Amino acid sequence: MRLVTVRIDGATRAGRVSGDEIVLLDAPDVRAVLEAGSVADGRLPVAEAGGSVALESADLAPLIPAPDKIVCVGSNYMDHILETGKQPPPYPIYFAKFRGALTGPRDPMCLPAPDVSVNADWEAELALIIGKPVRNITEGEALDAIAGCAVLNDLSVRDWQMRTTQFLAGKAFERSTPLGPALVTADEVGDGTGLDISCTVDGVVKQSSNTSQLVFGPAKLISDLSTIITLMPGDVIATGTPGGVGAARDPQEWLTPGAVVRTAIEGLGELVNTCIVD
Amino acid sequence: MRLVTVRIDGATRAGRVSGDEIVLLDAPDVRAVLEAGSVADGRLPVAEAGGSVALESADLAPLIPAPDKIVCVGSNYMDHILETGKQPPPYPIYFAKFRGALTGPRDPMCLPAPDVSVNADWEAELALIIGKPVRNITEGEALDAIAGCAVLNDLSVRDWQMRTTQFLAGKAFERSTPLGPALVTADEVGDGTGLDISCTVDGVVKQSSNTSQLVFGPAKLISDLSTIITLMPGDVIATGTPGGVGAARDPQEWLTPGAVVRTAIEGLGELVNTCIVD
Repeated sequence: MRLVTVRIDGATRAGRVSGDEIVLLDAPDVRAVLEAGSVADGRLPVAEAGGSVALESADLAPLIPAPDKIVCVGSNYMDHILETGKQPPPYPIYFAKFRGALTGPRDPMCLPAPDVSVNADWEAELALIIGKPVRNITEGEALDAIAGCAVLNDLSVRDWQMRTTQFLAGKAFERSTPLGPALVTADEVGDGTGLDISCTVDGVVKQSSNTSQLVFGPAKLISDLSTIITLMPGDVIATGTPGGVGAARDPQEWLTPGAVVRTAIEGLGELVNTCIVD
Repeated sequence: MRLVTVRIDGATRAGRVSGDEIVLLDAPDVRAVLEAGSVADGRLPVAEAGGSVALESADLAPLIPAPDKIVCVGSNYMDHILETGKQPPPYPIYFAKFRGALTGPRDPMCLPAPDVSVNADWEAELALIIGKPVRNITEGEALDAIAGCAVLNDLSVRDWQMRTTQFLAGKAFERSTPLGPALVTADEVGDGTGLDISCTVDGVVKQSSNTSQLVFGPAKLISDLSTIITLMPGDVIATGTPGGVGAARDPQEWLTPGAVVRTAIEGLGELVNTCIVD
């Protein structure tokens, strides 16, 4: 099952993808669907609302417009670690992103104004979407907490990210981070490992890897985070990016206004975002 | 004016402190009051709801139970920087805390279980509470964005904070971070600078400083953050902690179950929290 959040009449509405249609559901967004009950087995915990919209022309909102938490993971692909000249970390490296950083899967991807930064970079990532509240769970229990998976691009403003020890400043720029296009439920996609992942900019492949390269996999991340805090339905875990980011290229490459970024994961679909200056 | 969020009948309610009473307001919490309009001039944008409760025995919730954002600032007091052997940073060091980390001003302060960590540390902080949406504002405009100030203790699980380069893991433990007791509006407290700040553990003074020691003051922090993302009513900026934390002592000191932590700022009141294992 594929679930989306779509903008209609100035509000949002959850929907289920059925062929080339989105069947509207009785919930304002996908987080509300997950709060109503489990979708991991491919069944819907909410009713259909009546009505549908065409998938191709739908105005898709960020899959989870307002998550309780967005947890990002740094240095979590072996190939990305190698390109940045580092060692695999002994523990997962977590940082946060605020919900205001999210944007829709077909929306513009907002870059900072040129006088703020010209160092915006792409980061294709597998996003795990949590399906139920969990705290202090083992790795063996962790996969049951996954509602499904989606695609995220963790746009990174590198000079702001690296101007201090803490990444947050470069990871939270408003409407910079597309999330979607759909929640593909766990009965279809499992924990999202073993899938090809890529990012192209203006048709040129910049990142091409496989989620099997994750250093810390979904079960480890969920179990470890649940030691700290209760993960909630609709929480987003961005699991890190593979090699090929612009900052690690020689010469370095950055996103510029008008660039079209395609972020894709096998079986999950793709984000297509045109860069604009916010 | 002093505003609080109080738990009543299984829900929360905003209130205005009047002598030894809390006059209940027609809003579920202080964030909702701020979303209804400005309080910076000491006027209320919502009506009284009828009824009051005694301040002394009230069950106070976290001042803002569910902020859109909690931004914390590291290494922002000159005396704390000196005790950790560092230099003042060239830019503010930001990291995030999730709303689930908050606890009430008189609630237990939850420590990790001993097999998770025994390195929980105190951090008394001035919290700025944002009063209106602001983006891309100058330092000159920034003070108008402050609804008022409160007290926060940024409980820090040091081994988890320092196990990677990113602090989040040690800063987000559930129900660890008291916020309150009240929002003291900006007409009374200004931007919160020039106030004595302290933390005592079991009656022993551990931190004693003044918010004039801030390296990056409120106007700079708000202006800088507004470059990244829109600050929203009820957003919390924890401005950093002064010297005297347990990790910097010789020998190091940690919070243990049963310890009573008092976190106070001149004119803003105090948090009194007993440590428990969560």
